[in-house]
Amino acid sequence: MRYAGIKRGLLVGLSLGWALSVAAVPLSAEDSDPARWGWMQGSPPPPEKRISFADGSYFQFPQMRWSVAHFRQLMPTVQVARGTGPIQPLASHSCAALDALTFVPWGQSEPMTWAESMRANYTDGIAVLHRGRLIDERYFGALTAEGQHAAMSVTKSFMGLLGALLIEEGLLDAERQVVEYVPELGASAFGSATIAQLLDMTTGIRFSEDYADPNAEVWAHAAAGNPLPKPADYVGPRSYFEFLQTVQPEGEHGAAFHYRTANTDALGWVMTRATGQNVAQLLSERIWQPLGAEQDAYMTVDSWGTPFAGGGLNLSLRDLARFGELLRQNGRVGEQQVIPAAVIADLRTGGDQAQFAQAGYSQLEGWSYHQMWWITHNAHGAFMARGVHGQALYIDPTAEMVIARFGSHPVAANAANDATSLPAYQALATFLLEGGCALPEG
Amino acid sequence: MRYAGIKRGLLVGLSLGWALSVAAVPLSAEDSDPARWGWMQGSPPPPEKRISFADGSYFQFPQMRWSVAHFRQLMPTVQVARGTGPIQPLASHSCAALDALTFVPWGQSEPMTWAESMRANYTDGIAVLHRGRLIDERYFGALTAEGQHAAMSVTKSFMGLLGALLIEEGLLDAERQVVEYVPELGASAFGSATIAQLLDMTTGIRFSEDYADPNAEVWAHAAAGNPLPKPADYVGPRSYFEFLQTVQPEGEHGAAFHYRTANTDALGWVMTRATGQNVAQLLSERIWQPLGAEQDAYMTVDSWGTPFAGGGLNLSLRDLARFGELLRQNGRVGEQQVIPAAVIADLRTGGDQAQFAQAGYSQLEGWSYHQMWWITHNAHGAFMARGVHGQALYIDPTAEMVIARFGSHPVAANAANDATSLPAYQALATFLLEGGCALPEG
Repeated sequence: MRYAGIKRGLLVGLSLGWALSVAAVPLSAEDSDPARWGWMQGSPPPPEKRISFADGSYFQFPQMRWSVAHFRQLMPTVQVARGTGPIQPLASHSCAALDALTFVPWGQSEPMTWAESMRANYTDGIAVLHRGRLIDERYFGALTAEGQHAAMSVTKSFMGLLGALLIEEGLLDAERQVVEYVPELGASAFGSATIAQLLDMTTGIRFSEDYADPNAEVWAHAAAGNPLPKPADYVGPRSYFEFLQTVQPEGEHGAAFHYRTANTDALGWVMTRATGQNVAQLLSERIWQPLGAEQDAYMTVDSWGTPFAGGGLNLSLRDLARFGELLRQNGRVGEQQVIPAAVIADLRTGGDQAQFAQAGYSQLEGWSYHQMWWITHNAHGAFMARGVHGQALYIDPTAEMVIARFGSHPVAANAANDATSLPAYQALATFLLEGGCALPEG
Repeated sequence: MRYAGIKRGLLVGLSLGWALSVAAVPLSAEDSDPARWGWMQGSPPPPEKRISFADGSYFQFPQMRWSVAHFRQLMPTVQVARGTGPIQPLASHSCAALDALTFVPWGQSEPMTWAESMRANYTDGIAVLHRGRLIDERYFGALTAEGQHAAMSVTKSFMGLLGALLIEEGLLDAERQVVEYVPELGASAFGSATIAQLLDMTTGIRFSEDYADPNAEVWAHAAAGNPLPKPADYVGPRSYFEFLQTVQPEGEHGAAFHYRTANTDALGWVMTRATGQNVAQLLSERIWQPLGAEQDAYMTVDSWGTPFAGGGLNLSLRDLARFGELLRQNGRVGEQQVIPAAVIADLRTGGDQAQFAQAGYSQLEGWSYHQMWWITHNAHGAFMARGVHGQALYIDPTAEMVIARFGSHPVAANAANDATSLPAYQALATFLLEGGCALPEG
């Protein structure tokens, strides 16, 4: 998939007359810039500039760099309404010194600047809050301030927070089994898992996310959720919910952390049954409206209208930053307690580090996963939401810092961009703690 | 189509156990209420509650009453961004007397109240501004204040205003031929038409909008613009722009008014070539952002990403009212002149009434069509944007009144709802002029 995309990118690139010296290396951020390629430009766009969901071109590289900011144009979506209330203001504070901040990427010996890191990891947008003030905001690729970008699996952390909130409210019981909320999942591997196990992804289910393996369950999941009419000879599940009913057991529940998207979709079904609202409505009512978001967000849906809880959220960069600030402020937005502080405190405590270690994330030593958040357990108590291709929300309570980032790195796994992002975030935290951007106490 | 939808609705209704006494009459507003039918409710919705774009059920009655407020969930769309600027405030002024206002529907002898008219014509939402204050705002059916509703052909009036604006700016010349802007249309009937003829729909083109005729060009237009993958045996045009190139001449340009959607799509192509922006971008930049809209709007697109200029706009009710107020204020929003006053003055002057009369709208005697607006030429100088199934924006400068209305009347043609809406608007205008809702001079 990845290499096919790169190869196709090269061919198209060459046909446009661009000389590329190293065929095995993906196009750089500059060379893959969607504006430079002119995707979907022209009236009508000529065939070689068109991007389509149906033919799969939308997720090949470099087309994907356009698609991540245009999902609504590729498929049906539902609104996550901001409501009609006031926008929560985001004050700005200029910090020119930030550009020259340096850090050493993991596995390298030469320092890189903050500004250089944007190109190195194919950043589409980054917003940094320090003490609630916007000290950096940049857009690249196909993203603008008024546009929305795919959050990919950052979606899961929104869902996890909603799940934790429903537990706090007594609408869900962490220790009850999934089958008690969704009887249809009784015969699947999910039925006997607890809500807490869903939230920490310690269920024993068979669900491979190895995109290189055509038999991986993630492909059946994608086919089920594909909103286009199914081919005449299609015999598999026809919606996210039908897919979940087919998931088989593998290993014991509660034994180890395994990062599997299907857990979040199952949580979405449970939450919908517990509240009578789908996850887009829940997200709007419980978070997006009280957050004072400046834009509607949206979610992709399957053909039966079910939002993709595991990864279908699209939102603006500033609103992602606002959401991070809500987390940093222990659930408060201004003077209003939107999420109980106890929910955020529990989330930040994290999960079982030994169980996390079994998943083999060699770059994330000592981390854990809890309520669908990634907890660093570092000295600053930082925690993250993470999505493929470089989507991130990084909250460092000690440095009073929130970083919202969207990206379109050619490699899906975040291991490919962590080396130029996580050490940059840590360097920025230190810089801020040392007064690098002089700000009043907030 | 219409009767098939009604019949299907009856069958589904009966299968749900609802007794219906008169089989030939469509369901009433109450009996067709989407909430009562529970469309797309349930997790997942059961088969009989699902609505699909692919199988055409989305536009059968009564399913259509849900669909008009959920187009983005049915097909791909593009954002009409409100930008990140401030929202133009809409002050409210309660006017309880309005509920009891009566009028006599055309063709009837008994009076009807303003409140009763909402049900009679399947209103989904209505907002009335008097001197810029919101004196009435109601939602029915599937619409809410934070949702968007299909504008249908009200879209055309947005496009016409953009066209008139581009002429004023010198980016378009009213007297130049379409072929000069879009050479690809040279061999079609549009090529030799002028921009002014497009705007007044006096082109001589063959384009039947008779939905009952399977050979009507409107079906080929719809097939071309359908964003789903084309069937393997499909041989027709594959986008709105390809369709426009196939339109044949019929009659002379400039001889008579013929209401034909393809004119607006051709205008969309012309405007895109003249500005380098598609019509959604143009609408955002020239109108939506300076308007201070409180929500993004959106447009449906074909599979090549071209917005449907002839009818693809979806927007919130309050924003439609704001747009009407911009027209009433001769192009001003607050202190800012967003559209030159001369553009609005020309629009309100109207078109050729004799040419309009040839189109045979028996209920709209004396009206004309100009810049894709409907001009009443009544004593109040009222003018309108109109879309099938009851979409309307009615501006009465004399009564300092703007009425924004969305609907989902079972009959597409507005002749079916004009009898209970146009006399109501006129009665309301008189009521306001007589001080029915005491308001300060504005």
